[in-house]
Amino acid sequence: MNSKAKLVFMPSGKRGEFPVGTSLLDASRSLGVDLDTVCGGRAVCGRCQIEPSFGEFAKLQINSDPAHLSEFGPTEERYKKIKGLGDKRRLGCQTQLLGDLVVDVPEESQIHRQMVRKSADEIRDLVIDPVVTLHYVELPKPSMEDQRSDLERINASLSDEWGLSGLKWDISCLGELSAALRAGEVYGGEFKATVAVRAGHEVIAVWPGFKERVFGIAVDVGTTTVAGHLCALDNGDVMASSGLMNPQIRYGEDLMSRISYLQQNENEAPNLTAAIQTALADLVDAVCKEADISPADVVEMTIVGNPTMHHLVMGIDPTQLGMEPFPLVVDEGTSVHARDLNIPINRAGYVWFLPCIAGHVGADTAGVILSQAPHLSEEMTLVIDVGTNAEIVLGHKDRLIACSSPTGPAFEGAQITCGQRAAPGAIERVRIDRETLKPRFKIIGVEQWSDEDGFDEAAENIGVAGICGSGIIEAVAELFLSGIVDASGRMQAKKLDVADHPNFVAKGRNFEYVLHRDGDRVIYVSPSDIRAIQLAKSACYSGVRLLMDRMGTDHVDRIYLAGAFGSYIDVGYAMAIGLIPDCDLDKVSSAGNAAGTGARIALLSASSRAEIDRVCRMVDKVETAIEPEFQDYFVAAMSLPHSTEPFDKLNDWLVKQGLASR
Amino acid sequence: MNSKAKLVFMPSGKRGEFPVGTSLLDASRSLGVDLDTVCGGRAVCGRCQIEPSFGEFAKLQINSDPAHLSEFGPTEERYKKIKGLGDKRRLGCQTQLLGDLVVDVPEESQIHRQMVRKSADEIRDLVIDPVVTLHYVELPKPSMEDQRSDLERINASLSDEWGLSGLKWDISCLGELSAALRAGEVYGGEFKATVAVRAGHEVIAVWPGFKERVFGIAVDVGTTTVAGHLCALDNGDVMASSGLMNPQIRYGEDLMSRISYLQQNENEAPNLTAAIQTALADLVDAVCKEADISPADVVEMTIVGNPTMHHLVMGIDPTQLGMEPFPLVVDEGTSVHARDLNIPINRAGYVWFLPCIAGHVGADTAGVILSQAPHLSEEMTLVIDVGTNAEIVLGHKDRLIACSSPTGPAFEGAQITCGQRAAPGAIERVRIDRETLKPRFKIIGVEQWSDEDGFDEAAENIGVAGICGSGIIEAVAELFLSGIVDASGRMQAKKLDVADHPNFVAKGRNFEYVLHRDGDRVIYVSPSDIRAIQLAKSACYSGVRLLMDRMGTDHVDRIYLAGAFGSYIDVGYAMAIGLIPDCDLDKVSSAGNAAGTGARIALLSASSRAEIDRVCRMVDKVETAIEPEFQDYFVAAMSLPHSTEPFDKLNDWLVKQGLASR
Repeated sequence: MNSKAKLVFMPSGKRGEFPVGTSLLDASRSLGVDLDTVCGGRAVCGRCQIEPSFGEFAKLQINSDPAHLSEFGPTEERYKKIKGLGDKRRLGCQTQLLGDLVVDVPEESQIHRQMVRKSADEIRDLVIDPVVTLHYVELPKPSMEDQRSDLERINASLSDEWGLSGLKWDISCLGELSAALRAGEVYGGEFKATVAVRAGHEVIAVWPGFKERVFGIAVDVGTTTVAGHLCALDNGDVMASSGLMNPQIRYGEDLMSRISYLQQNENEAPNLTAAIQTALADLVDAVCKEADISPADVVEMTIVGNPTMHHLVMGIDPTQLGMEPFPLVVDEGTSVHARDLNIPINRAGYVWFLPCIAGHVGADTAGVILSQAPHLSEEMTLVIDVGTNAEIVLGHKDRLIACSSPTGPAFEGAQITCGQRAAPGAIERVRIDRETLKPRFKIIGVEQWSDEDGFDEAAENIGVAGICGSGIIEAVAELFLSGIVDASGRMQAKKLDVADHPNFVAKGRNFEYVLHRDGDRVIYVSPSDIRAIQLAKSACYSGVRLLMDRMGTDHVDRIYLAGAFGSYIDVGYAMAIGLIPDCDLDKVSSAGNAAGTGARIALLSASSRAEIDRVCRMVDKVETAIEPEFQDYFVAAMSLPHSTEPFDKLNDWLVKQGLASR
Repeated sequence: MNSKAKLVFMPSGKRGEFPVGTSLLDASRSLGVDLDTVCGGRAVCGRCQIEPSFGEFAKLQINSDPAHLSEFGPTEERYKKIKGLGDKRRLGCQTQLLGDLVVDVPEESQIHRQMVRKSADEIRDLVIDPVVTLHYVELPKPSMEDQRSDLERINASLSDEWGLSGLKWDISCLGELSAALRAGEVYGGEFKATVAVRAGHEVIAVWPGFKERVFGIAVDVGTTTVAGHLCALDNGDVMASSGLMNPQIRYGEDLMSRISYLQQNENEAPNLTAAIQTALADLVDAVCKEADISPADVVEMTIVGNPTMHHLVMGIDPTQLGMEPFPLVVDEGTSVHARDLNIPINRAGYVWFLPCIAGHVGADTAGVILSQAPHLSEEMTLVIDVGTNAEIVLGHKDRLIACSSPTGPAFEGAQITCGQRAAPGAIERVRIDRETLKPRFKIIGVEQWSDEDGFDEAAENIGVAGICGSGIIEAVAELFLSGIVDASGRMQAKKLDVADHPNFVAKGRNFEYVLHRDGDRVIYVSPSDIRAIQLAKSACYSGVRLLMDRMGTDHVDRIYLAGAFGSYIDVGYAMAIGLIPDCDLDKVSSAGNAAGTGARIALLSASSRAEIDRVCRMVDKVETAIEPEFQDYFVAAMSLPHSTEPFDKLNDWLVKQGLASR
């Protein structure tokens, strides 16, 4: 037998020649193969599992033989007994190379493992690359002959075993170091501990003995709700999710009213900051309880939110965001100690805020970009995150351009006569029969349509409460598609001769269209509702149009509708009312809570942080408020639909999708 | 006239040729001349003052003429009117070069100005090099055409005007940035602000408009007392000083009793930490009030202290320092946010802890080294900081070696029959007449000796309370020098036939020596007191001896006695009892509170921090507890004096110094 043997790691194909007897973990390190380890080769963590390859391919390349591995030893036997080990699996740290060999590194043994997107709300294809890593070390105990400090001692091991040098220790870890080392002592003769290192240079936690995994929380701080996902940092698994109301609501329902409140009440910003920080603390508590995880094991948090929320969480007074020229105080991606924000994760854990783009285009939009990745696309991509403002991003890999457009709260069911939030009982789907002009609808929480068997029973407890954002859009679109309102938004009721129609109620010179009647309670669409939707969609469309002009393009290849609104709405109706420009309807889709997904990506991937910071600095900003064309587009886009898409083609598509009435 | 002119800056001698019309500040910057500025050349700070040189020397070098400067202009006139300007002084930023010229940069216009030591308690010769610097900027206001964030805007100016790039902003400064810029607006058309930058890379404070100066506090955290100096960071001026008791005293009088308390009461360390942190907060409050300075203007603090105090201030449980092998948790010089230690200086200000050397040789010793600088000396230098332990450092520029020796509390007047702390009424000086064997003494707080006119009146209110550390040493030395006790420490009373002598009281087979009698109250020296002093001085001397062995030297050239004890004791008596080894007595001196002075040096000089960190890592540590020779030396050093210095020569010297009785 040769004193050296060839070794090939799959799937990377990295290869080298090593002295017989080299452990596979050591070999992988010297080749830079992506083979995970937390315990540094002590058969504790089981992360470095490999499989000898049995394929013919292996034979062809080199004289590979699975038998060219050291025998399954007692250490592996013990590990298998305690923690389990797959059939052909070996521990890379305990297995020596005896002859030429090809080995497979299974995906779960890779540090940078691939996550594959499964649905809109799922994370995009992503290579996990956590900003916080775990490192287990064993240290000689101090003696009268070796009186090095605890810090010098552990730093020496972290440097020798892990190549980590120049580490900065957070003060809270210095306070815990001595006890952690000495508690770890019970495991045997040496000091044993695991440290968490952030960004390769800062120690943010230390635990006695071996620590298997740590966690992070990705949070979307909305004006109305705050939602978070607790994720394992090593594989991205979502362990728990929770949402709660933003308690700032007592200072104003929407953003502008909160900013007005701050403008009128000096020195109140700290109270709004305290309110949202308390909510974040509650969120941490909720997800940790649900997953049965100690908050001390949560070492990182990422936050997305509009500029006002972003600034308030940080403790920055956002008043200037409400005044021309709307400058941000902070835009770049920012790390802040969670303790300085009163957020009770690990004492030395950090919160990373995604960057903001402009005064009205915030870290939420950065999250949307990270999630939908228009900057990586060849296609001309349009991403719209609809809320009280529509944040709009247009572009492709060579250029991105963004703006915010003041849609108002109509799309969220606010300022609509019978409007309400998307909650059980809200009408979310509406169809109008093209012949009888009678409506049918669906409410949130009930399976059946209103004209189907079982609806009344199912709806009895919930009640029909009002119309939510997607409901009002569908209602307006159907009113138009069935000829009840014309392109200008005016009710054609007189022309249609519906004087005795039960769903039409005359109101002065105009009509209201009744969707539902239950005793005295009437749920209807008023002319002012139609107007509100026209204004909102026109604002959104004008923003898009302005960006298309600036981009010098007359079309878009792909449209994503992000946010809660984007999840509920049927994209066909969005196009029917002219919310979005012409596009192949098969290429229009909801992106789910893309901002929150962006926060999760930033949580799991350090490189994505550099990516989004770079991309946001490159985004061209357009300020709709000072662009004269915006007003022109706004007026022009009021009609239903402004779309140049032939009407029948659109209707066909809607029917095909089962959206419009037959 | 040439279009270029020669310019020489004195005292550096740096020279160059510049286009006529160049401002002297710009020229100094391009040559790297040490000319200060905070306002960046806007005639606001007045730091860049220069004087054209009138000397003949200047003429000889180049065709220098003071008239080769632009005329005194209205900006300088206004500055002179408001803030004053010396006779020949010009503002470097407002003065243009018109022809060949030599200019002087006066010392107060240099950033790195020299401080010269004036006394033992004064700081050593030092070049000021503050870790925190101030930078004034003016920024264009945001507009719809320039919507850059506040952060990007000010960072651009700091980079352009001050060459500061890649700055990290503390979260508390982000919260203040917007208001500071907009408050600064009242000064005129542009945003104006001053930022404090630490270590050239971190913004730790921002103020509206122009900020003249900031401050730091240097603190010596002792087991008994905590003392601090508030200093201006630009010139080192001490603005206020304060001292208070260490409130940890309720957990034990001395270090070992506090560590014992911690060993017996688990989880009590946070209470000791809270106690000392509260004391530090009180100290900040006291010195700021005294100097009428806002704590927000205090941006840096330095701390020295023994390892136990050092650890407790940081929030580290020091229990292990009391158990073999006495390892430190943290040794290197460490920066910690003051807010993480609950110390109420500027929110983003830091505390820098001087490094510790070994389990019993702490940051106080590091301060002593920085102050006395044995590592810069050619002489074999011995520095002893005497307390309950004696921290001993021996060496010179090529090597330092250190240990701690358990002297016990006798030198502080504790465990002495009539002992007490150095406070008013304590006997601090003792002389015994060689013929009559009668004593005379001085007490703290009274000018006269006890046998002088006016003593009784002066002492009436204070009272003679006991004997402090220096008093007991002088008493023992004088008992020996006058032949009352022999070299072994035994009382020769019987031999001397003093049966009826009023100052000798028989006690069993032994005698007590009475220093003072006031009714029933008798203050005396007992045989056990002599024994305690013998043990203490023997411990100290043995430590020194051990270090001399390790160093391979049989002599020392220079001795410094540091600490409160070192300030009170007369060095001749220290040698008389054999506390210190033979040395030319003119080369033995008190170093005052050298540890505190070291803290002040570290506060004012960034480079001194790197220096002491490097030196401490190089110091060889000797652990007296495990050295067999230590025991041998200890036994041998019990005699009075152990010194080989001929007795008569020593006595001569004492008489010459006015120390011993004639």
